[in-house]
Amino acid sequence: MTLEIPRVVISRLPVYARALAALAQSGETVVSSQALGEQLDVTPAQIRKDLSYFGRFGKQGRGYNVRGLLTKLREILGLDRQWRLCLVGVGRLGQAIAEYGGFEPQGFQIVAAFDTEPEVIGTTVGHVTVRDASELDVYLRSYPVDIGVVAVPAAVAQKVVDRLVAAGIRSILNYAPIAPHVPPEVTIRHIDPVLAMQSMTFYIKANESAAK
Amino acid sequence: MTLEIPRVVISRLPVYARALAALAQSGETVVSSQALGEQLDVTPAQIRKDLSYFGRFGKQGRGYNVRGLLTKLREILGLDRQWRLCLVGVGRLGQAIAEYGGFEPQGFQIVAAFDTEPEVIGTTVGHVTVRDASELDVYLRSYPVDIGVVAVPAAVAQKVVDRLVAAGIRSILNYAPIAPHVPPEVTIRHIDPVLAMQSMTFYIKANESAAK
Repeated sequence: MTLEIPRVVISRLPVYARALAALAQSGETVVSSQALGEQLDVTPAQIRKDLSYFGRFGKQGRGYNVRGLLTKLREILGLDRQWRLCLVGVGRLGQAIAEYGGFEPQGFQIVAAFDTEPEVIGTTVGHVTVRDASELDVYLRSYPVDIGVVAVPAAVAQKVVDRLVAAGIRSILNYAPIAPHVPPEVTIRHIDPVLAMQSMTFYIKANESAAK
Repeated sequence: MTLEIPRVVISRLPVYARALAALAQSGETVVSSQALGEQLDVTPAQIRKDLSYFGRFGKQGRGYNVRGLLTKLREILGLDRQWRLCLVGVGRLGQAIAEYGGFEPQGFQIVAAFDTEPEVIGTTVGHVTVRDASELDVYLRSYPVDIGVVAVPAAVAQKVVDRLVAAGIRSILNYAPIAPHVPPEVTIRHIDPVLAMQSMTFYIKANESAAK
């Protein structure tokens, strides 16, 4: 069944879950697809269609039960679990990732970090001691992780991704400014600030033209 | 006209442009929507529809002229220009952003950086000297920037975004792990590794179920 659900639908579910969690926290018990859509810049029809892949939620004209829908989405996405990450690349960016406060409250824990620089190996970042990257494959055979986080320079990103995939990792979060290739059974998400900005410059240009 | 183009279409154009640039660099002169779609995990019909918002490209059965389409997309998105960024927040993450090598080759230049920490103010990150955040508003009145980059803790992100918007900034790249509110005329993009990972855990769970 899961293969029939478009990837873009899956990618929207965490956004819905986050909005519902905020509503629950502020004491809301019911929300309409209209209100949820306005908050998220998504049409109500889109929200209803996305959710319909997973069953029937809410009653016509009554809106969604906030906690009920949130629980269901958390279950679908596995947000109620702990996920183990390994970080490859502990330069400035890798250090920022290791010390980022947003992961652990959401169930994502960095359990190992790897680098090739002798000055970095053995230092502590976040809660872990940086290991020699040459130990990556051996480590992953003994201590499986769920998600590989790649924070190495572009020039070596493909090689690192290949090693993670060869070691059995099926989910990769890529911070390197290139898009490494992965086999179809592997999911990769790119943290790409340039792409994000390039889709904003369109609007800057449009505003300038409108102002002329 | 621009207001009729769905935001999600705009957000895909930089991805097409990047793929076309790679094709051009490897000497390809023509590409079909089929081949481009396979490379990007997008249906050929989606590519043709997205591009149709901006005119007619390619001839039936002949594919797209790689350089011609790339030039057009770069023009639409303003990728042939230089864009001025100001960075607010120069902690570890802000430092990594300031020294990230992927911005300048793409026309994005950090022209100013701000922080509130006395130990950080006056230090150099990337090509700029960190200024006192209290000077932010005055600076932006004298030296307009195109995009504000927010790398402050979640607790102060909304306040920083409000100040940027009040100073006339209409495009914001947000690294803080919350989604600040902005008025409709402002475009904001979130760099959100948690959301990216939450859409991958769905597939990890699905694989586990399939393996049982």
